[in-house]
Amino acid sequence: MADKMDYASAGVDIDLEGSAVASLISSLGKSVRQTGTPGAPVDLPGGFGGMIEFGDHLLALATDGVGSKLQIASMLNQWSGVGIDCMAMNVNDLLCVGAEPIAFVDYVAVPKPDPEVHAALGASLAEACRLARVTLAGGETASLPGIVTELDLSGTALGYLKKGEAITGEHLQSGDVLIGLPSSGIHSNGYSLVRRIMEHSGMQYTDTAPFDCNSSTREILRFNKDNDEVSLGEVFLNPTRIYCDPIVDLIKYAQSSESEFGVQDIRGICHVTGGGLSNLLRLHDSLGWEISNPLTPHPEFNWLAESGGVDTWEMYRTFNMGCGMIIAVNHQYADGICAWLQAKMAGIQIIGHVVDNGRKVVHSPLGIEYTHY
Amino acid sequence: MADKMDYASAGVDIDLEGSAVASLISSLGKSVRQTGTPGAPVDLPGGFGGMIEFGDHLLALATDGVGSKLQIASMLNQWSGVGIDCMAMNVNDLLCVGAEPIAFVDYVAVPKPDPEVHAALGASLAEACRLARVTLAGGETASLPGIVTELDLSGTALGYLKKGEAITGEHLQSGDVLIGLPSSGIHSNGYSLVRRIMEHSGMQYTDTAPFDCNSSTREILRFNKDNDEVSLGEVFLNPTRIYCDPIVDLIKYAQSSESEFGVQDIRGICHVTGGGLSNLLRLHDSLGWEISNPLTPHPEFNWLAESGGVDTWEMYRTFNMGCGMIIAVNHQYADGICAWLQAKMAGIQIIGHVVDNGRKVVHSPLGIEYTHY
Repeated sequence: MADKMDYASAGVDIDLEGSAVASLISSLGKSVRQTGTPGAPVDLPGGFGGMIEFGDHLLALATDGVGSKLQIASMLNQWSGVGIDCMAMNVNDLLCVGAEPIAFVDYVAVPKPDPEVHAALGASLAEACRLARVTLAGGETASLPGIVTELDLSGTALGYLKKGEAITGEHLQSGDVLIGLPSSGIHSNGYSLVRRIMEHSGMQYTDTAPFDCNSSTREILRFNKDNDEVSLGEVFLNPTRIYCDPIVDLIKYAQSSESEFGVQDIRGICHVTGGGLSNLLRLHDSLGWEISNPLTPHPEFNWLAESGGVDTWEMYRTFNMGCGMIIAVNHQYADGICAWLQAKMAGIQIIGHVVDNGRKVVHSPLGIEYTHY
Repeated sequence: MADKMDYASAGVDIDLEGSAVASLISSLGKSVRQTGTPGAPVDLPGGFGGMIEFGDHLLALATDGVGSKLQIASMLNQWSGVGIDCMAMNVNDLLCVGAEPIAFVDYVAVPKPDPEVHAALGASLAEACRLARVTLAGGETASLPGIVTELDLSGTALGYLKKGEAITGEHLQSGDVLIGLPSSGIHSNGYSLVRRIMEHSGMQYTDTAPFDCNSSTREILRFNKDNDEVSLGEVFLNPTRIYCDPIVDLIKYAQSSESEFGVQDIRGICHVTGGGLSNLLRLHDSLGWEISNPLTPHPEFNWLAESGGVDTWEMYRTFNMGCGMIIAVNHQYADGICAWLQAKMAGIQIIGHVVDNGRKVVHSPLGIEYTHY
């Protein structure tokens, strides 16, 4: 049995990050853009993306990078997934406020440009644009040998929605039903811990994964197709799922006259990123969340927990544990919405419900709970 | 006399960057967004920013970072200007297509978050938002100790314009008049060469600048106010000028009924970045540019040229040489537009005109020319 590991011991100081970001935000003043004019800020409760006014619409921006998952991509020189990761981290945040992503720009910082790497990144971003149904509206490659030692990739996504149709969590009620959408793997969070566990395990990223990766709810993007066996590197680099399909489609269907439910029946959407299940707490100030019928974690999560001696509580607040997005809906239409989503994506199920019993997330089968994001 | 230096010998391989970016772009396919729907790509000649359709408007995104100027900020632990640099590099690109910037998001990658540095960045970004008149709509701070050795800062700006009012350069004509807007210093390009020359000179960034920095066209942002003398570090970190005021105002005035000239009389706008005067070549496929009455370069440009033995041709294709933006206007209204701008910003003057004599930029007083960007 390994020493017990957690996210902080893997070198990530979440408190320090939080206080740095708080310092930055406290230095910012009010926007000069007046309410009712293009660009005026819109403060909505619980929003993941920043929103501004634009006529009858709101525009939302999200900016994020791939993070230390890139270090595995660099080590293996495998770039086919990271453009998808970068897109996913941004557009999935936009979906949480009910915005439809329409455009994306990428920012790449490298010690030295490499045309082969850039061609692979371009192909990955092109696939990402197809999956997210957005236009790549620009990008920047910066050569910064004094600042970066290997490639950093981030991006910004732009989305829009009609005024009055933002999904904010403010209409959440006790009894609302939680629908879980399966992840494709580890997505783009928790990689400091993944890399630490890999070092500790003595395994190589090129080693065959010591578990069965097959699953009806996700496919592994293979980069070494000559080998029948899936490597640990392929599992860990599997690109983050992009949820535009089915979430944008669900919102459009809810807006249509065919639908018996409306956009207001989609009460909250949560992108399960770093922080795992505790992300749900961001959606409401007082309500709680009970996960009674969770999705099954992919086998790599079990392998990481065992190899790193990571306890269950820590696993569920670091990783998505098989569930990449959670949609809270009016219980009256929950079965219909779930069936509509299941027809679009395998592995979706009702995983729990909203409760009025204090602001906490309870995973009842495992008996763990979270009271802080 | 020093060895002759140029931008390539300072470690920047522009050709390699170009071929890396070309590799990425060639991997991209067509957008899935159909013409006439939100997010459909708009291909305009000569545009600096990526544009998409949005109803009766076009939205434009620009993404860029501060680059190796950050290494001087890191060395001196002085962050008051870099948020302005980051904003400027993006919004000034948006202005070139006639877009009004309305929102901005920042991306910071650090080896380890530092609340003091983030507070200073926040203050700098707040000032940048005020100068550019945009809303800060979000941001991301990534801790990437395995990827960055010191702080990297980039951002994305969003702007908009009415369909049919994009400034693209396509209506440029021989005889159009060029109006030059003064820079505030080196802005955010050419810093690999600046740092190389500094190393070679034996001077320290904390040394008093060996030239008179005073100028009626720019102020130096002082970070060591206890010292009466301006240091080289203060000169080199002076933040990039943000041209929203007066360019957004000029465009709005041109759209108004009071104005004798219209938006169509503003034929092209050029942000003078890396590439210096050769940036003008991006605005048109066949016309040329004669600079007959240039702005006076700030004294640091002369000091860099002398200290580094950089020849004049290289200086004008690496640095802005005192002129950060160039606006090409219908000659009929040139005096009026120039006077309107001069009332808003000191140091603006007519610097030359568009000529139909081959696609080249000629700086006639110095007898230098550029035929390639």
